[in-house]
Amino acid sequence: MPSPTVKNILEHIEEQRESYVADLTELLRIPSISADSTYAGDVKRAAEWLIDHLKGLGIHPEFIETKGHPLVYAETPPVPGAPIALVYGHYDVQPPDPLDKWITPPFEPTIREGRIYARGATDDKGQMLTHVKSVGAWLKTQGCLPLQVKFLIEGEEEVGSEHLEGYLCDHAEKLACDCVVISDTSQFAPGVPAITYGLRGIAYYEIHLTGPNRDLHSGVFGGGVTNPAIALSKLLSAIIDDAGRIQLPGFYDDVVPLTDREREEFRALPFDQSAFEQELGINGVTGEAGFSTLERRWARPTFDVCGLTSGYQGEGAKTVLPSRASAKFSFRLVPNQDPKKVTTALRQFLEPLVPPGISMELVDFHGGPGIVVPLESPYLAAAADAIEVGFGKRPVFMREGGSIPIVKTFAEQLDADVLLLGWGQNDDNLHSPNEKFTLTDFQAGIRSSAALWDALAKINQDA
Amino acid sequence: MPSPTVKNILEHIEEQRESYVADLTELLRIPSISADSTYAGDVKRAAEWLIDHLKGLGIHPEFIETKGHPLVYAETPPVPGAPIALVYGHYDVQPPDPLDKWITPPFEPTIREGRIYARGATDDKGQMLTHVKSVGAWLKTQGCLPLQVKFLIEGEEEVGSEHLEGYLCDHAEKLACDCVVISDTSQFAPGVPAITYGLRGIAYYEIHLTGPNRDLHSGVFGGGVTNPAIALSKLLSAIIDDAGRIQLPGFYDDVVPLTDREREEFRALPFDQSAFEQELGINGVTGEAGFSTLERRWARPTFDVCGLTSGYQGEGAKTVLPSRASAKFSFRLVPNQDPKKVTTALRQFLEPLVPPGISMELVDFHGGPGIVVPLESPYLAAAADAIEVGFGKRPVFMREGGSIPIVKTFAEQLDADVLLLGWGQNDDNLHSPNEKFTLTDFQAGIRSSAALWDALAKINQDA
Repeated sequence: MPSPTVKNILEHIEEQRESYVADLTELLRIPSISADSTYAGDVKRAAEWLIDHLKGLGIHPEFIETKGHPLVYAETPPVPGAPIALVYGHYDVQPPDPLDKWITPPFEPTIREGRIYARGATDDKGQMLTHVKSVGAWLKTQGCLPLQVKFLIEGEEEVGSEHLEGYLCDHAEKLACDCVVISDTSQFAPGVPAITYGLRGIAYYEIHLTGPNRDLHSGVFGGGVTNPAIALSKLLSAIIDDAGRIQLPGFYDDVVPLTDREREEFRALPFDQSAFEQELGINGVTGEAGFSTLERRWARPTFDVCGLTSGYQGEGAKTVLPSRASAKFSFRLVPNQDPKKVTTALRQFLEPLVPPGISMELVDFHGGPGIVVPLESPYLAAAADAIEVGFGKRPVFMREGGSIPIVKTFAEQLDADVLLLGWGQNDDNLHSPNEKFTLTDFQAGIRSSAALWDALAKINQDA
Repeated sequence: MPSPTVKNILEHIEEQRESYVADLTELLRIPSISADSTYAGDVKRAAEWLIDHLKGLGIHPEFIETKGHPLVYAETPPVPGAPIALVYGHYDVQPPDPLDKWITPPFEPTIREGRIYARGATDDKGQMLTHVKSVGAWLKTQGCLPLQVKFLIEGEEEVGSEHLEGYLCDHAEKLACDCVVISDTSQFAPGVPAITYGLRGIAYYEIHLTGPNRDLHSGVFGGGVTNPAIALSKLLSAIIDDAGRIQLPGFYDDVVPLTDREREEFRALPFDQSAFEQELGINGVTGEAGFSTLERRWARPTFDVCGLTSGYQGEGAKTVLPSRASAKFSFRLVPNQDPKKVTTALRQFLEPLVPPGISMELVDFHGGPGIVVPLESPYLAAAADAIEVGFGKRPVFMREGGSIPIVKTFAEQLDADVLLLGWGQNDDNLHSPNEKFTLTDFQAGIRSSAALWDALAKINQDA
């Protein structure tokens, strides 16, 4: 049940519905494509729009130059005894190509059937703006917020957040907070709002096996010289058994098992296995024995080969014994697994398996650990309550199989719980043509955010 | 010991040394590149040169038009009670590219340090001409040959002998013979003349595994969807065990074991394992347990992966779970193994191993059986004696790991033993720049060929 204060704010939010859409439309018109230097001026213009907008709400933002695109920072006044929330978002967008697939131009926002279509609609201008608007609603109706909210909005998320990490490290005190709020993900499904409380980590590698110093005739040499492509198949096969268990010694030692509550939460989700298979065009799945598809994708470590290269790949037959065979592969890690330990175990596991006549080079690419917010976190509970207010429905708790490196950075640098509150839908076409954001989700996001400040403020900081 | 007749012929051959080189030079000047239609006129000119040359020897050749380049046929008179030998060779050559790597132009034959450099010098104008010249020497000095020799010289060997097989089938009676003589291979090493008495067959396949209908994000889906690249690695690995044994049921059933004599012949060859490894830049070899490198390469069936393709192969990391994974691979077969049986066994072996979520397509490329002439063949023995006369050294008996499909066709269509009498060297650069033929090998080849007609004629046809 929302408090009278929150009720009052929600009424204001309802009244502002059209003005919110108008403001979002204005921001979406700016082609702030961070990847394309032609648009550097527009990226800056989007940052300035935000600055002006935050000023209009009565807070004093900072325009922070970096060696790349600028950061926008702002904070509401401190509230002693209440927690501090930091909102992270981004105002830059993906390139809109292919342009000819857009029904209406990417930077001419258009509303069709209650959805606003434009590049950046959901990723992340629309979702980020919900928090700016909710803070505005509090300030407009109450004059202040019940806790301090800080905003850190960047312009380089779509190009790797190159200058954000440095800023985080250098300004940990300024950015100090108890929780980080990020709305840059999706709901579980339409009508099923969700909180993403865990992400997997990753350890990515490239392996090169080199045999003879040149491609050989497979007739003249075949059988007498170790074939690198067969050796590669054997090495990759050895990494995972037929029950989907990774064979590196100690690989599962640090894996925190799913709790009963988590397994129940996942089981309760409206996930349709046969629809999933049908959508992917497959006649079944395999994976780690003893786990459901969602558990396998979200909360269990896994091994995937991402690429294979060897020998002749053109049309027809070429009777070659290749000189070299390579693969790209990754382990998705669950929280508490250390990519560095995986690298050590991997090397120790593979080296004795390399057959005579083959030399191995193992390249360790980027790696990053996973992250999970304990389901018992009071911040998660507050967010769940807020979403129930905003969407009229209690959110489900989900995890995400992918990695969002910046999330881990926030959690580590600021020692804060990260709340991934996605207002979008899985079919919002982020990074694709006809990106959209459903206006009822936009409005429910603003409502949830407004209720979140209230719910977070009530958390007992001494507990 | 050569007979007085042969001695007499060898003397004549010695006298003609310079005229032989002059004739070879003339033929090598003709750029009879069968692959390039620009040179079609030159290909024809080479055939006509041969026709004129055979006429000059006193035999009446035929210029046989095909839908491609012409065949040249000729025969000496029948000799009742004596066997018939058919010489196969080719007058067409490989393209000479890359031209800038040639020290002297490919169609301006040049002699340096006792070797003649030109495209086609060893492959196959020089080697083929040895038999023409030896027949000429017999006719010139004796007026006749002790057996009938037939010549079938084609102009499409370098482009797949497209029209030869049809001609063989249609003219089996005309081409009837007891043995086929082909000089288009190499000696074992300089000073080690050889007879190649066996070739491996081949069965070549392409496998395509398809999983999801598009490349997936390896974070979002990894662990919950079968990865085709891992499935491929598992399938390929299953085909051969760590002892180098192929696992298809019944695969070895038809394999004729090496005889003790063959193993002894191979063991006696001056093969230097460590030089072999050093030349290939490898620190060791693997292969079927219980067999030597030469046995593995020449006389044992094997499995080789010739190409691998899947997912992302560019620079850096892409976190993709590929939709598809493919491989090209072959089995080299030994004589008596049937490629069709291998295909059936392969399909039966692989199908149950395809995991849920993956569909398999297996493409059966060209296949061909191996061939072996029993070491007890009187034709082999005659050839060995002849080579001893020509080279002053008894030849070794070797096999070849590769396949020469046309050899099998000759053996089958004409039901004759095939004698692969290579006069060339392994470093003669056939198909590469600076192709050469050593003039002492050319001359020894002519001597051996002359002695061969004598030795073959002495074989008792009733035995």
